[in-house]
Amino acid sequence: MEIHIDRGSAVPIYLQICQGLREMIVTGKLPEGFRLPPERRLAQALGVNRSTVLAAYRELKADALVDAHVGRGTSVLARPLPSHGDPGVVPLAWRQLFSEVGGALEDPLLRDLLELSERHDVISLSVGLPARELLPLETLRAVNEELLSEVGPAMLLHSPSEGITPFRATLVDLATTRGITCSLPEVIVVSGSQQGLDLVARVLVQPGDAVVVEEPSFFGALQVFRAARARLLGVPVDGDGLRTDALESLLARYRPKLIYTLPTFQNPSGVVMSLERRRQLLELAHHYQIPILEDDPYSELRYEGTPPPSLKALDAHGYVIYLSSFSKVLFPGLRLGWVVAPRPVARQLVLAKQAVDLHSSTLGQWWLDRFVRAGHLARHVVQVRQAYAARRDVMDEALRSFASTSLTWQRPTGGFYFWCRLAEGMSHTRLLARAAERRVSFLPGAACFFAEGGEDHIRLNFTFPGPEEIREGVCRLGEALRTVASSVHQRGSHGGTPPIV
Amino acid sequence: MEIHIDRGSAVPIYLQICQGLREMIVTGKLPEGFRLPPERRLAQALGVNRSTVLAAYRELKADALVDAHVGRGTSVLARPLPSHGDPGVVPLAWRQLFSEVGGALEDPLLRDLLELSERHDVISLSVGLPARELLPLETLRAVNEELLSEVGPAMLLHSPSEGITPFRATLVDLATTRGITCSLPEVIVVSGSQQGLDLVARVLVQPGDAVVVEEPSFFGALQVFRAARARLLGVPVDGDGLRTDALESLLARYRPKLIYTLPTFQNPSGVVMSLERRRQLLELAHHYQIPILEDDPYSELRYEGTPPPSLKALDAHGYVIYLSSFSKVLFPGLRLGWVVAPRPVARQLVLAKQAVDLHSSTLGQWWLDRFVRAGHLARHVVQVRQAYAARRDVMDEALRSFASTSLTWQRPTGGFYFWCRLAEGMSHTRLLARAAERRVSFLPGAACFFAEGGEDHIRLNFTFPGPEEIREGVCRLGEALRTVASSVHQRGSHGGTPPIV
Repeated sequence: MEIHIDRGSAVPIYLQICQGLREMIVTGKLPEGFRLPPERRLAQALGVNRSTVLAAYRELKADALVDAHVGRGTSVLARPLPSHGDPGVVPLAWRQLFSEVGGALEDPLLRDLLELSERHDVISLSVGLPARELLPLETLRAVNEELLSEVGPAMLLHSPSEGITPFRATLVDLATTRGITCSLPEVIVVSGSQQGLDLVARVLVQPGDAVVVEEPSFFGALQVFRAARARLLGVPVDGDGLRTDALESLLARYRPKLIYTLPTFQNPSGVVMSLERRRQLLELAHHYQIPILEDDPYSELRYEGTPPPSLKALDAHGYVIYLSSFSKVLFPGLRLGWVVAPRPVARQLVLAKQAVDLHSSTLGQWWLDRFVRAGHLARHVVQVRQAYAARRDVMDEALRSFASTSLTWQRPTGGFYFWCRLAEGMSHTRLLARAAERRVSFLPGAACFFAEGGEDHIRLNFTFPGPEEIREGVCRLGEALRTVASSVHQRGSHGGTPPIV
Repeated sequence: MEIHIDRGSAVPIYLQICQGLREMIVTGKLPEGFRLPPERRLAQALGVNRSTVLAAYRELKADALVDAHVGRGTSVLARPLPSHGDPGVVPLAWRQLFSEVGGALEDPLLRDLLELSERHDVISLSVGLPARELLPLETLRAVNEELLSEVGPAMLLHSPSEGITPFRATLVDLATTRGITCSLPEVIVVSGSQQGLDLVARVLVQPGDAVVVEEPSFFGALQVFRAARARLLGVPVDGDGLRTDALESLLARYRPKLIYTLPTFQNPSGVVMSLERRRQLLELAHHYQIPILEDDPYSELRYEGTPPPSLKALDAHGYVIYLSSFSKVLFPGLRLGWVVAPRPVARQLVLAKQAVDLHSSTLGQWWLDRFVRAGHLARHVVQVRQAYAARRDVMDEALRSFASTSLTWQRPTGGFYFWCRLAEGMSHTRLLARAAERRVSFLPGAACFFAEGGEDHIRLNFTFPGPEEIREGVCRLGEALRTVASSVHQRGSHGGTPPIV
């Protein structure tokens, strides 16, 4: 591969590299599927910084000439078909047409991880999925048969943007079992919590508005607030949840538009916010008149003890927008979640939803309605709680056996994840590649932070893989950790950047 | 009902009315379900303009104290529960917190119409739905059984944001049958065309960007572009489609970001853009370097002749983003559509989708994949074409019998709708209420225009109601038309505003 670099040129070096590669791809010298050299290698060969090569690859990717995947490097995509029309027509410069938001979207990490999880040879400890073999498919089959007879074609037609009325009535009752008193106009069905987050951001957040998030936080929420161009304010989480002492000064100073929190079995930290902290948080919100968005996908999945009531249940003044989901307890593929919001907000959310996707799957709503009404959901939750508690213990043991020198962690009392801290000096960037080589994936901690931080943490899921896979996955992870640890050690003693004398 | 109006007060009269009503609602004097008097009546009683009462009702609605529905008036909602907490806490002023976009959303018309269509006693000629009794439910049942055995739980788990690979490969082939050559990275699954529109707007349109739309146009698209705060430029549609002569000067002057068109069996007009116009449109787009968003939900539903190739098929230069849907030919309740876009756009659309709802229903994708692959879709299309052609003829005849003095129309050669012009002096505003009284609904033409216009048109759907319902619905509509026509006549000869002498 020949790339000429002219250091005297006004064209930045990364663009020169990009253009050299582009020409080879467009002329067919580099065929479809060809793997470009790892950035570090090409950087060495050309005598440039790694970041320069990284920038060149990023440009090629944006032009859809190559694609990059964690653990598989960067490879050439099939070329677009040659155009047959008027040769005078200028190809559209799409990148210049993108909106500020649309053009700034850059987060293929999650996509890569979802893709890795589709590969059968990779043990995924990265995604937040329920156990596939425990999904109540037989019940679903029966429910579908019942409904096809009882409801018929209406199950497959359009339905109101806010959700079908019977399902919303069921959700009112479900909320009651969680201590939340609400009425029909306050309940909206959404296409998964991700949509709930996006709709709330659309209705409340303008570019430049401040939004408080926990650090660490759910990366899907960070994506949404980033896309809404909010100014994010991070508040650390400790063993009792969001640090309300650190929150107050932020509220006073920045008057944020919204406080986003996941108080129960937090993603990724697994922490449960204490009752005292919940009360303090509500008091602060009331005092500074700032609404709270409470994300609650995991509270049913508790393995010991009972977490405190939700913020929504504790709030007597209508400051809390409550968001929950069926993706963690039943079928994530149906994309169904729900929101309980004060009426004026609920109304705007429904109007926003109408423009965004008209309504959520009608069929899925009928199915879940029956699952909840007939008690199938409650029975299923009892069953998976047992199974997940056992898997959690398996992971805890496996971590002790294979990874205790490099990781520290708290055994979670509910939810889906272990949040592990890497030993001093280790970073997950190198670990990710080593782990991918050994066919095991995890969520890098940095994904859970909006700016800096998190490189010293990884998130491991224990609900999707079975007990055997958990042991094997953690064993592979242990190997990867040892490789990285030994190189840290070597650099620390023999290599690395020389000290300034 | 006592409302005191102080004409000397600085408080605007509409707010005085609003406050009077609010107090009666909050104190329980007006109980849940109480119907407020029609605006006209209250206006007369208070000696104010109708628009003043309208504004008062709008405020009450925004505060979620009342709800309004076409044909049923405005009624009091259940009161929120009294708060039990600290009496010093200020209730949140939600309306002040809404974002510019979120607070401006105001389009309950479609919601009302969807709701009307749920009522069994109303004949809906308003919604764009396929025939419910022709939905292939038995095939669906069989397909579901097959897939539960073959694919199993993966059908109900997460899937890539761009869609499952087998389904996307199927869509590549489906595109080929429509003369569109594309490759896998260009094809994305979306949650119905509505989401496709919204994602394209997110990626390309910034507040203030100009977007060309047809007049009339699909109201769902208008909603999306309005929410994106685009500056809309209307181009009239005639019997050959979008008037390219009127387009050119707009392109030269405003350099819009996007041209949105629905060239085949346009919604609402039913018009097919001629081949010549298609070529002209593409030439203009190429010349001015402006991308086209082609919306194509109806092209399979042709009842005579064959429409020209799609713009995407005719475009050799990658200027066209193609959008299609399964909602008109199969199951709208599944919310599944698809986009074929040049790669750089496709990539950003996928990133946007990931933040918006992670991915579309995994199950629905497997179902539709099997429907297309196994030929079920093709067979179904043949069957519904016959049925819809017959229904179209029934509507044409019924219109001749019951409405020919008040309406003029072109018999459509495909798609879902008759687009009817009202006789001179008639407006659909009064007709809507008269029709709702007779339990028949239609789409008011104004919904298909972004600013002014359309009050002299109504859109009638002939695919959802059966032949009997069509006749009965048009008969009821004819009665409503005669009532409105006679009042127009009376006002014309005896009443109304006196001429200026």
